[in-house]
Amino acid sequence: MIAGWEDVRAEVLRRIRARLWAPGALIPGEEALAAEFGVARATVNRALRDLAEAGLLERRRKAGTRVALLPVRRATLEIPVIRQEVEARGQSHSFRLLAMRMAVPPLPVAGQLGWAPDAEKLYLETLHLADGKPYAHETRWLDPAHLPDPRPDFAAVSVNEWLVTHVAFATGDIAFAAEAADARSAEVLGVAQGAALFVTERTTFTTETAITFVRLIHAPGYRMVTMV
Amino acid sequence: MIAGWEDVRAEVLRRIRARLWAPGALIPGEEALAAEFGVARATVNRALRDLAEAGLLERRRKAGTRVALLPVRRATLEIPVIRQEVEARGQSHSFRLLAMRMAVPPLPVAGQLGWAPDAEKLYLETLHLADGKPYAHETRWLDPAHLPDPRPDFAAVSVNEWLVTHVAFATGDIAFAAEAADARSAEVLGVAQGAALFVTERTTFTTETAITFVRLIHAPGYRMVTMV
Repeated sequence: MIAGWEDVRAEVLRRIRARLWAPGALIPGEEALAAEFGVARATVNRALRDLAEAGLLERRRKAGTRVALLPVRRATLEIPVIRQEVEARGQSHSFRLLAMRMAVPPLPVAGQLGWAPDAEKLYLETLHLADGKPYAHETRWLDPAHLPDPRPDFAAVSVNEWLVTHVAFATGDIAFAAEAADARSAEVLGVAQGAALFVTERTTFTTETAITFVRLIHAPGYRMVTMV
Repeated sequence: MIAGWEDVRAEVLRRIRARLWAPGALIPGEEALAAEFGVARATVNRALRDLAEAGLLERRRKAGTRVALLPVRRATLEIPVIRQEVEARGQSHSFRLLAMRMAVPPLPVAGQLGWAPDAEKLYLETLHLADGKPYAHETRWLDPAHLPDPRPDFAAVSVNEWLVTHVAFATGDIAFAAEAADARSAEVLGVAQGAALFVTERTTFTTETAITFVRLIHAPGYRMVTMV
């Protein structure tokens, strides 16, 4: 018996799986399905929306709903402040500011952020610890134009947390990769050079200008997990 | 002048950033903001929803909307079929089925998937190539109960693509990590043992039972990129 939207979703899934509705095929409209299942149209809508979000259906406002040719699953990642991430593991977070100086960023960084190639920006290097053990090595380029005068004390509050709570950003991108530990990360994280490390790179922008480029080099064993 | 929902969002962002509305503080209701900005309530709603999805506001149905104490950004990852992912890079995809046999999965795999510890399942090993070069080494445990009789020819269609187009799954999780190449992945991908490789692990379930556990060990240089 079909009672709630989960039942509608299960039945639609069954038809897709059994190829009663083939990949690429147009499926009946919401009203027709609501009549067939004896439920409200909103119930059908909720179920189809869920399957569309999961990538199994493709919905076009005027052209109707089709079974996806190749379903694309989507996963949502939460990107918390590092302190929160460590505390969520039941560990205590601390950090050490290892370096802070004005310097000219490498060309690829300046290029990606739209900075003049010879302009000095603020370079910050921070070690994050979980229960006193190295958790992530953070290297960051930051446009000091986004900082108040006098500058925040980044030895007292991590630049990661200060930015998240003080500088709202409009857009950005994030990349994940595996890298062999270079000499500096190996030293800071206390691992062998060449060890396989999980690296997160982020760039963030206001609607007009770049704020920061940050690399987080995680200690060995780091896993990023989410639901699909 | 405030005209559209993006303008409302920009003004709300400005107030959060300037700490006119402090972290944790309750902000005015939608009707009050609509009156202040001279826009429809739906326009305010659209802007606040966007900021809530970005993790900057916290909305509770009865308790109103607060500025998030620590904004959590969310990123959406698309997880396409491997062939699609390779073709989206402008390369041609091919694959080789390296192994297919019934075997008893390692205990951690059986445990995670709720399989009896001594039950044989189908083990499949596939090498994905991009323009003929190793792209990812796929190792998979699959419950053959989800396969039709006779079984699909996984040398002709990759098990990855066959499952995505034929077996709808309800839930699952995905994990990302960096690992040193073991002897087998090093051989298959043509890299040195110990090389830093990006690894994706997925488990998928129907509403009742586990379907598959798959590890994708990517060739060096793989980056997963998304917008934040």
